[in-house]
Formats: sequence, structure tokens, C-alpha cells
Amino acid sequence: MAKLQNAISPTRNEDYPEWYQQVVKASDLAERSPVRGCMVIKPWGFSLWENIQQALDAMFKATGVKNAYFPLFIPLGFLEKEAEHVEGFAKECAVVTHHRLEKSADGGLVPGGALAEPLVVRPTSETIIGESFSKWVRSYRDLPLLINQWCNVVRWEMRTRIFLRTSEFLWQEGHTVHATAEEAMERTELMLSIYARLAEDYLAMPVFRGRKTEAERFPGAIDTQCIEAMMQDRKALQAGTSHFLGQNFAKASDIRFQSAQETEEYAWTTSWGASTRLIGGLIMTHGDDDGLIIPPRVAPSHVVLLPIVRKDADRRPVMEYTDKIAAELRKKSCYGRPVQVEIDPRQMGGARNWEWIKKGVPIRVEVGPRDLADKSVFIGRRDKEPRARASMAWKEFVETVPQILDEIQANLFRRALDFRNTHTHRIDDRQQFYAFFTPDNPEKPEIHGGFALSHWCGDPACEAKIKEDLTVSIRCIPFDRGQDKGGCICCGKPSDQRVVFAKAY
Amino acid sequence: MAKLQNAISPTRNEDYPEWYQQVVKASDLAERSPVRGCMVIKPWGFSLWENIQQALDAMFKATGVKNAYFPLFIPLGFLEKEAEHVEGFAKECAVVTHHRLEKSADGGLVPGGALAEPLVVRPTSETIIGESFSKWVRSYRDLPLLINQWCNVVRWEMRTRIFLRTSEFLWQEGHTVHATAEEAMERTELMLSIYARLAEDYLAMPVFRGRKTEAERFPGAIDTQCIEAMMQDRKALQAGTSHFLGQNFAKASDIRFQSAQETEEYAWTTSWGASTRLIGGLIMTHGDDDGLIIPPRVAPSHVVLLPIVRKDADRRPVMEYTDKIAAELRKKSCYGRPVQVEIDPRQMGGARNWEWIKKGVPIRVEVGPRDLADKSVFIGRRDKEPRARASMAWKEFVETVPQILDEIQANLFRRALDFRNTHTHRIDDRQQFYAFFTPDNPEKPEIHGGFALSHWCGDPACEAKIKEDLTVSIRCIPFDRGQDKGGCICCGKPSDQRVVFAKAY
Repeated sequence: MAKLQNAISPTRNEDYPEWYQQVVKASDLAERSPVRGCMVIKPWGFSLWENIQQALDAMFKATGVKNAYFPLFIPLGFLEKEAEHVEGFAKECAVVTHHRLEKSADGGLVPGGALAEPLVVRPTSETIIGESFSKWVRSYRDLPLLINQWCNVVRWEMRTRIFLRTSEFLWQEGHTVHATAEEAMERTELMLSIYARLAEDYLAMPVFRGRKTEAERFPGAIDTQCIEAMMQDRKALQAGTSHFLGQNFAKASDIRFQSAQETEEYAWTTSWGASTRLIGGLIMTHGDDDGLIIPPRVAPSHVVLLPIVRKDADRRPVMEYTDKIAAELRKKSCYGRPVQVEIDPRQMGGARNWEWIKKGVPIRVEVGPRDLADKSVFIGRRDKEPRARASMAWKEFVETVPQILDEIQANLFRRALDFRNTHTHRIDDRQQFYAFFTPDNPEKPEIHGGFALSHWCGDPACEAKIKEDLTVSIRCIPFDRGQDKGGCICCGKPSDQRVVFAKAY
Repeated sequence: MAKLQNAISPTRNEDYPEWYQQVVKASDLAERSPVRGCMVIKPWGFSLWENIQQALDAMFKATGVKNAYFPLFIPLGFLEKEAEHVEGFAKECAVVTHHRLEKSADGGLVPGGALAEPLVVRPTSETIIGESFSKWVRSYRDLPLLINQWCNVVRWEMRTRIFLRTSEFLWQEGHTVHATAEEAMERTELMLSIYARLAEDYLAMPVFRGRKTEAERFPGAIDTQCIEAMMQDRKALQAGTSHFLGQNFAKASDIRFQSAQETEEYAWTTSWGASTRLIGGLIMTHGDDDGLIIPPRVAPSHVVLLPIVRKDADRRPVMEYTDKIAAELRKKSCYGRPVQVEIDPRQMGGARNWEWIKKGVPIRVEVGPRDLADKSVFIGRRDKEPRARASMAWKEFVETVPQILDEIQANLFRRALDFRNTHTHRIDDRQQFYAFFTPDNPEKPEIHGGFALSHWCGDPACEAKIKEDLTVSIRCIPFDRGQDKGGCICCGKPSDQRVVFAKAY
């Protein structure tokens, strides 16, 4: 029997970057907008984002964080206060210079009303939030101050890719103020652990936790901690960062407090963020050549019911049967949410089934007259082959749906972890290291070894050389690296740390 | 006994606009930002907004609406397509003309990288969403398309006031596409009914429902429906609008579909929105001279527990007693949400109690050693006088807390409705009408009669004359105006409709 054609063309092996674009399109998550570098997030994609938001928001609030909202615009003068920060962040940004549209001589519209001080559309909000914090914080009794904001930010990217790198994106940015360095560092770590939990437990995306090297740090931070995931092209995706800012931003924004000993001190601050980029990570972790696969825990719908009506006489009994199953399923729950059920009543043959495969819904259920007669349902799981479908008594299906969803969630995580483990190697030989990151096939320059766990002496010069030679960077210095002495993969000098080297998004 | 001083100065009677600003400040809802016309929404205010959002979002979704996200920026050319719309809306707006910051000769930052086509920060999204819809809609099978977006918008206002009129504000904008005018009109009405339900059932704010006159319509709309509430200075606040756009925007954005009869038709669209302005309405509907009063159904916290510890020996038993009460309260629910309890452990005497009065929390509960001994709690309700506090057995309090919150919600609505009824008059005499809207006291120009239900012949000239003479506008032509013939309050010509005349925010 001939191999069925895959739903997505090209396949991952044929052309990974193009496969990604095609999955975004076929799954109806999002699309390019006519505004340069900006995306439109469509309902299926936005619902996925809402589930990610809700999960993160609940975890944040459980640690005492409160949400607030700060202005979209940052006066130019604010950015001048934090030179290093601007250098790294705010150079490519949208600048508002006028506050009016006027009719031109030819009847078109032109900007009018020049602003005395231009405004920058926030690329991140440290400077503008710092301004408020400097007024809110007076005494150690006001601390810790734990604030988060869900918002849009703009960074004028030259090369954009939906979800991964867009000029406008949605994110959350947390900003906290503490009386001591220790407490601020604990908060930095706590928030990273929440991102890791989101990635692994919700998105089924295994991550390395660690800290950035000095060269890779957030501009102005003392310590940047991150989670790094492996995509199916073996490149790394940074999926969340948490920054210990020391007193740098407190000094720039003048955030001072009176201590319990009645001395005047600069506060210690942190910031941490995760964005719609996580959706890009989810696609590239789980998607296959038939499209998107969404882990149940964040899926907009868990089950889609596909009634099959071939004759008019079947319509009523089949639809009633479908409604009954939907009602029973909705009484069940999946990780604390009621099971989300969608009914797609369109009669369009196999094309309907394939639409839902491409959209990545965890469970597809066909119900036709024969199933009704047998009191059964015909089930397709997205973690299995499209043709590996099976019949099941409807009552048994309803009873076991939480376990099936659980199983799918666990399978996706295990599969991703296996993939990462297969393509993560401890490499101690320089030649082998260079070979690992050099494509076998010059026609497919993106195919390389994966993650290398190799020794690094700590010298930025070695880091820079590897980056220049191979476009490979140190993704993180992992927290759980254990005791393991060796020689730097670049210069051979003694090292007591293996770090994660990889090509990255 | 001397009258206690009020917590807010000035009082409503002394200076209403200033009272408003002081309540916003004292309740810790929000503050002005250093960015012209933009506000910072503080945690207490943002939590209130989150509750409003959740209520609306659930009602929207129950009618089949799905959320999505569209770009912040609108290319200038898009606005040129809809001239009437721009005339009414997009003239005072933030214009992005550059995409980079560069170092100037003196070391400061200046805009660089001029854009070929300037971008406007969305003042509303009809034009940019229309562009997507024109691609999404092909056939009648794609309809209705029911989309909502939660986002920030910017309108460059000259005179700003927190929540009521700010350059940047948060809102939702719904946009729907239909195959027939009837269906689009039904949707327009349905969404208005949701806003009315939010206003009355959640915000305890009675509203008139009706349609705008032609002069007051949304630019480009065929019909604008609205809800109008009376503030305590007897002025009207528009609290939500729903627009039937006919085929105007479909023609401008080229949204066409193939009908069931295989003809090519322009679609019928609607849009509808509500914003953070609702918070301004809530403040001015319920607030009193002691500060904010929040209806329980949208309150960030329902109950604040205030443990009183005067001696070290009391600390542990009092805190344990407080924790036990909090745990029991959290098992109860208020309109489907678990009762939200906050413990404020700061020992700062009466000042703490007054802070919570000003913040408008529905129920304050003091628990000290004497209450512990008596197994009681000492309760203050925000719908009663600050000194009207009463002791109650703690178990009884826990058992009855849902009813008490219910009672507060109902009291607030009844009080607001009484106020509105007292200051709404049917006026049929022109002199009386002019007197009604003319301040008695020239030193308090804002004090006037309130809402007048008066006849209007339908002539825009009469409407314009009254607006010019009295700064009074027709807030709406109410839906439930019944049969009632009379003479136009301006020209005396026959009229079969009473409309709502008022001064407005």
C-alpha cells in the first residue's frame, strides 16, 4: 500500500523553516498582517495563548504577585537614564513623533502636531515602571513589591517569523522590588521555576534550567536565568527568562527605601518575562508532518466530535447522539478544567478530519449511524498515526477521557524528552565538537548534531570564538551540572563546568 | 457629638470633579503617569478591571464570540479608505514615523530610520480588522464571524481625566460579520443587552438603553446603540456602545461573500466596545464622601480581616483565630466566585480601618482578643455609615456572608436607582427645561437638574440648538419609551418620542 501523503508540505526533513510556516497556516493559529513584522493571532491561536496566560497568571498570583498596567509610551528621556539597557534593547523601536493626522494638499493624510519630546513604544518596561516604583516605595514595610503586567511590546525586528520574532508581540513582564539582594535572588529563581513548570508540565516541553554567560545577559542585569528547549531542528529556543537586576535599575530609577535600621538604601529589583514565542516553541517541539499537536493541558479544545450524516433520515438521531456524548464529556475534567468539547457539524468527508489533525486537537471522535447502532465512537488520537483509529464503547470513552488526555500529555513530554536526549551529547574533543555543529549536507545547512554539553573555562574569548566559527552560543550554564572537571572545548584550559552549547533561535 | 470629618476632602458637594480625583487617589486604584494623558492602573484598580473583563468575556463567549488579536499599528493608507471614520476618530492619534533611536551629537537620543509610510497607533480597529476579515470571509458558510479583542487603544485627548478620558486606555472591541442586515442588527442588540447586564447586575449601575441620534452616532455607523448611566453630579456617562455598521465598513474593507444563492454580496458588520471608563462610572455612581464603594460582584476582595494585636501575648491566638475565619470564609461563594478574603496584619490603629473604607471593600472585619473570647467578630459594611459597626458570632457571620454580600449588592443598585429616579423628570415646558439645566448657584455651575425626559421632533436643528444653549445633548432615544405624543421641547412641533436629555461626560 502506498504511503499516504502528509498533510503538511514540505515535511520537516525537506525544509524545516518552511514546514513551520505551513503548520502555522494549516493549523489556523495566526497569519502575517499587512503591517510590517506584525502578526494577527487567530481564534485558535489566541485561545491557546489564553490557556498559557491563565496557567502562568495563577502560578504568579499564588506567590503573591499582583497585576497592574503601565503606559504604552516611554518618554525618550527615560531611556537616556539607562545607557546599557538602551544599547541592548531600545535602539530598534517604534518612535511616536506626532499626535495628529492632517489633510495634505493632495487630499491624503500626513502627520501633524509634532511632539516636543518623542515617545518610544515600550520594548520592555523597566524604565517606565521604575518611575512609578520610585514613588511607591518609601520604607522596608512597602517591600517586597511584586507586580506583573500582561501587555503588548514592540521591537523593530528586521527579519520576522510568526510567534518566534515579530515586531509586536504579547507577553507578561514581572517587576519586583526587594530590601535585600538575597530576597531578590530567591525571587529570580522562584519565577524561573514557574517558567520551567509551565514549559514541562503544561507545554510538555523539556527544558534546561540555568544562567546566561555575561555575554548573553539581559542588558543591565547582574544575572539572567533562563529555560532552554530543543526544537526538532535541534536548535535551542529560549522560552522564559528571569533577571536579577541588582541595584542597577534602582539606581537609574531612584528606587530607595528606609530600612528597619532607618538607613536609606537602594532597593534590589528583578524582572522576568515570557511571551507568545512560547507558542512557536510548542509548534516546533510537538508538530509533525501532519501539522500541529497541542498538549491537552493547554489545548483550546480537548475533543472534537465529528457527526457523520450521509442521509437526511440520519441527521436527527446522529446529532442527538453527538449532543449527548458532548454533554457527558463536559462533566469530566482535564487537569482542573472541564473537558473542552467542540462539535463540527459540517459534512465535508475526510477533509474535515484532516482539518482537525492539522489544528492539533488531542482527540477526534467520529460518530455516524453505525456507531450509534453499536453505542460506540470511533476515536483518533493526535499522538498516534492518523490512520491508527479505534472503536470504543461511548460510555467507556466518556469514563476514560481524563486518562486518555493524561496519557497524551505524558506521551508528548516523553517523546520530546527522548528527542532531546538523543540529540544532546557530552563532547570533550574539539574536533568532534566542530564536526557536531557542521552540517553533513551542505544543501541542508540547518541539520547538525544538537546540544553539546561541553567544558568551558569561563573566558569570554573562547565563547566568542565558538560563536564566530560555528554560530553556536552558550545557551546556559545549567544549575544541575554536578561535579565534573575537564578541559575547555575551545582552549583546553581547566574547567569545572559543562555548559549547554547550541545553535539558537 | 461633633460630626466626624469625612475621609475625602473636598466632599462631593464642595467640589465634585476634585472629589473624583481624590477618591481615585485615596482608593489606590490608579495614578497619573509622567506620560502625557496616560494612566498607571495600580493593583487594586487592575484587579477590579480583571473582574469586569472576566464577566464580559464569559458573557461574550456564551454567545459564540471568540477572542483574537490584531496589530497595534494601522498603516496610514488604511485610514484613508474610510474618510468619515477618520474625520470622527483618527485625527487626534499617535503617529509612528521612525523605527530607531540614534545618538545625537550631544550624546542624547534622537529618532532615526524614517518609515516610508507612517503608522497610526490604533484608536479603534475597524480598518485593520476589516482587512483580515476580507480574507477570512469567502462564503455564507464562513458567517457569522464573531470576533473580540481585548487591547489598549490610543486617542490623543487634550483634556484628560483618569479612567474617564485618557490618551491610552484598555478596552474590548467586538467585530462581527453577517450575511443579512437582520442578523447584524440582532447581534447589535444582543451585545448592548450584555453591556446593560454588566452595568446593572455587576456594577449595580442602572442604565437607560437606547439608540443615538444621527448627530451622536459612531462615525460610519448606521445605528449606534448605547447604555447611559447617571453619575452623582447628575451628568450622564455613556458606559458601552454597540454599532450596526450596515455595509459601510464591508465596502471600505471589501468584505464580500458568496451567498447560498451563489450571488456575490457585501457583508453586514457590527462593532461594540466597553472600556476602563466603566471604572470611572462605578466610582461616580457609588462613591461617597468617605471614598470608593465597590459592588461585591466585581470587588477584588469581598472581606478584609483586620486582626488587632495590642500585646505580644495576643499575637498568636488572634492570628490563628483570623486564619481560621479566613479559611472558612473562602469555602463560601459570592455569585459563583469563592469569597475573596484579604488579611491585613499591619498594626496601625484606626488608620488601617479607614484605608479599607477608602478602598471600598464591601466588608471589614475586626478581630481582637475580646472577639476571640466571645467567639465573635466586629463587622463594618461599606454600604452603611463607618460607625455603624456591629458584633456578630463568627459562625453566623461565615454562614451568612453570601447573603450579606448579596444585600450590599442590592442596596447599592437600589440606592443608585433611587438617585437616578429622583433626578430624572418628564419636562414638557420649554422654560422649565431651560431652568432645569441652568445652575441655581453660579459658583457651582455643575449643579443642575439631572436627566430630562422630553419630547423631540427629530429635527437635528432642535438638537443642535439645545446643545449650543445648554451643553445638553440627547443621550439616547430609549427603547422602552412607550406611546406618548407631545410637542418638541425646542420648537413645539408634534413628536411621538420622549428622549433622554442630559449633560454628559
